[in-house]
Amino acid sequence: MLEQLKKDVYKANMELVKKGLVLYTWGNVSAIDQDRRYVVIKPSGVDYEQMTYEDMVVVNIDGEIVEGKLKPSSDTKTHLEIYKAFTDTWAVAHTHSVYAVSYAQAGRNVIPMGSTHADYFYGEVPCTRAMMPEEIRNEYEKNTGKVITETFKNKDYNAIPACLVRNHGPFTWGNTAMEAVFHSVVLEEIARIAFITERINKDIQPMSKCLLDKHFKRKHGKEAYYGQDDEVKE
Amino acid sequence: MLEQLKKDVYKANMELVKKGLVLYTWGNVSAIDQDRRYVVIKPSGVDYEQMTYEDMVVVNIDGEIVEGKLKPSSDTKTHLEIYKAFTDTWAVAHTHSVYAVSYAQAGRNVIPMGSTHADYFYGEVPCTRAMMPEEIRNEYEKNTGKVITETFKNKDYNAIPACLVRNHGPFTWGNTAMEAVFHSVVLEEIARIAFITERINKDIQPMSKCLLDKHFKRKHGKEAYYGQDDEVKE
Amino acid sequence: MLEQLKKDVYKANMELVKKGLVLYTWGNVSAIDQDRRYVVIKPSGVDYEQMTYEDMVVVNIDGEIVEGKLKPSSDTKTHLEIYKAFTDTWAVAHTHSVYAVSYAQAGRNVIPMGSTHADYFYGEVPCTRAMMPEEIRNEYEKNTGKVITETFKNKDYNAIPACLVRNHGPFTWGNTAMEAVFHSVVLEEIARIAFITERINKDIQPMSKCLLDKHFKRKHGKEAYYGQDDEVKE
Amino acid sequence: MLEQLKKDVYKANMELVKKGLVLYTWGNVSAIDQDRRYVVIKPSGVDYEQMTYEDMVVVNIDGEIVEGKLKPSSDTKTHLEIYKAFTDTWAVAHTHSVYAVSYAQAGRNVIPMGSTHADYFYGEVPCTRAMMPEEIRNEYEKNTGKVITETFKNKDYNAIPACLVRNHGPFTWGNTAMEAVFHSVVLEEIARIAFITERINKDIQPMSKCLLDKHFKRKHGKEAYYGQDDEVKE
Repeated sequence: MLEQLKKDVYKANMELVKKGLVLYTWGNVSAIDQDRRYVVIKPSGVDYEQMTYEDMVVVNIDGEIVEGKLKPSSDTKTHLEIYKAFTDTWAVAHTHSVYAVSYAQAGRNVIPMGSTHADYFYGEVPCTRAMMPEEIRNEYEKNTGKVITETFKNKDYNAIPACLVRNHGPFTWGNTAMEAVFHSVVLEEIARIAFITERINKDIQPMSKCLLDKHFKRKHGKEAYYGQDDEVKE
Repeated sequence: MLEQLKKDVYKANMELVKKGLVLYTWGNVSAIDQDRRYVVIKPSGVDYEQMTYEDMVVVNIDGEIVEGKLKPSSDTKTHLEIYKAFTDTWAVAHTHSVYAVSYAQAGRNVIPMGSTHADYFYGEVPCTRAMMPEEIRNEYEKNTGKVITETFKNKDYNAIPACLVRNHGPFTWGNTAMEAVFHSVVLEEIARIAFITERINKDIQPMSKCLLDKHFKRKHGKEAYYGQDDEVKE
Repeated sequence: MLEQLKKDVYKANMELVKKGLVLYTWGNVSAIDQDRRYVVIKPSGVDYEQMTYEDMVVVNIDGEIVEGKLKPSSDTKTHLEIYKAFTDTWAVAHTHSVYAVSYAQAGRNVIPMGSTHADYFYGEVPCTRAMMPEEIRNEYEKNTGKVITETFKNKDYNAIPACLVRNHGPFTWGNTAMEAVFHSVVLEEIARIAFITERINKDIQPMSKCLLDKHFKRKHGKEAYYGQDDEVKE
Repeated sequence: MLEQLKKDVYKANMELVKKGLVLYTWGNVSAIDQDRRYVVIKPSGVDYEQMTYEDMVVVNIDGEIVEGKLKPSSDTKTHLEIYKAFTDTWAVAHTHSVYAVSYAQAGRNVIPMGSTHADYFYGEVPCTRAMMPEEIRNEYEKNTGKVITETFKNKDYNAIPACLVRNHGPFTWGNTAMEAVFHSVVLEEIARIAFITERINKDIQPMSKCLLDKHFKRKHGKEAYYGQDDEVKE
């Protein structure tokens, strides 16, 4: 079942490797089917070099395995919480990329300071609050998803498709598995640039709202004019 | 039309990828024809792996498409302003390379502190002023070009073939598409070295005018003695 | 003798190169046989490109060559001390990887600040005390091993499979040669992330014990639930 | 003439590219013949991809071209001064590698803080004084060599085979062209590690003389015991 979605999810997982974002078996990508009943996700702890698209695991929205010989990613329940809350999100990616993880460990948001950020994230990429001991001890992965969605209570997850989980790392999302990975790659790049910018100028302020608007809207929404008309604006 | 120029521009765009300066579809290179009537530029948002030289777009100096099935880079009007003001510039490159963007975001010039800088840029690489809200909201790309040329009002654009646009990133130029890219690559390297130098020694001063003169003139102008006689001094 | 172990040790040494952790002939990996009588180790100063598995040297637990035409790694006696003290350790790796060496030179432990660390190291990765002049002048390599094992007097070497030797660099260990290398690679990554995190937030505190427990135990021990059931949890 | 030396010098120049130490045509390597009459050096400003060993230029000790169709490196006279003063040096390399150049620009020596440094450089790698205007304006390249040898008046150039030229970059040397390059590669690595170490611990002190002695002598001199007996100790 869902053979095409498995291929898309497999290909997006391999893109994480190609872009240098993961070591060993780290990182995982999933996507949800059109009816939002099934999620296709990378198996847990399997070597990327040996993995095929047929190793992708299908789970239902409660996390039960529906198809697949392997166990799904240990982060599966985090993905599921995101799908439940962000009903217009169709794919999720998670990495341990160096700069995004560093901001997550430092408990700091990634502030928009230039067009590279504004082209893809309409405002700061937030870092969650620290999780409570009881949230960690019981249903940790589910609660990781909940703390992400709580962080977006007053934010537009379509306009800021990424979150840093405190002391952990980034989760990103998008319309397709490849777009979720794209957002992971761009997040890593803007976190790296933000890190260097903040070292050069310690009193740096966020960019103006006006410039943030201009760049984001140049690529997103009905007035977008970047890219070709028949293509996704990414 | 302008088949050779298309090939040159295509090749220079691919060089950006080869040198690791661009992610995905980021970055763009253009060149102007001998009569300064037509500009050949990379199409907007097209995957580098699928792009061919025939995808290059020809626009006239007002930015109207003269030949090509695709839309030109969304930064086309910035390139055109540069060609209008810098009448001895024949190619322009734009990237989001990490260190150059960081200096642009920090609103800081890249100061000459050593021979690597002085070999190619005869003084500090300037960062523009911030753009005004009205410059951003209306004709943003054109005004981006104008703020670059304004920054060079009292500077020699042939001796400093690069500018950092505040909160955005670098634009560089040269006699050929490949030379414009060459200046992007060198700018990224000297920005990286400047960043590390400033961390090692916070009280660092610019290099002496005497040493700056020596290195720049060793490679440029009629007394240049670097390289072979029959080659471009770069 | 021990042909399979030689192949494993050879392969693990080559993995150091593949992961970008060594320059030239730097770094070395060894493994001990099931009876803990013989150690297979990389020869000293041999070019990785020319090395074959048959160049691996077999020494006994006193460091005498038992088989092999080449001299063993000059760090052999450090490895042997580790095997003598850590009786449940079956392989040792040593590198000069950049961030781990920098923490070693700075005399600083690598503090756990996030899940990437906690997944593999159950607490801070310790840096040894400085060695005394007499320990350096006589039997230096043996004493390097002793200062490592001394550092773990009150620590669980199975839960923290790595040590930074002051003014020198990292030693890591594991159940297999490949696992020892795996721990070197992960140590380098977490040291790099720790470095960046500490630059972003100078007042950063270690992660909570609760989160450290959760992540380490998710991958290690009988309640581990990461990876597939029939595979090593790494 | 000197065909083998040309091949050695060519190969060493290409090794600079392979190790990622040079951009475009930057960097150059030379070697002197057994009678110390002729120096073989890379031509000036020639693309590495198109260069062959036959492009190497032979100059005499006064810098006059003896054989070769191309102009020698513009840094030739710096190399010659080094050969004149360091009569036991047989090859010289020059790069613009990022961290070594940064220390040169910052006017700072690279302090020995660990075994990686001590294995190859017996003490701090010195940075020259700034050159005087008259030294820059007249015979700049020759004076660059002179300021290097002046810096080593009270130092052993065999024990510290590298120098940072203030506001410029590193020169290294050795017994062979490949060894001179080897020292450039190691210098870049120890400069990078020193940079990170100094960021982690701002009050860092040099390593002990005792440990410096131990590591350097483990690899150099008649009591060396690193590597195989029939090989160069590097």
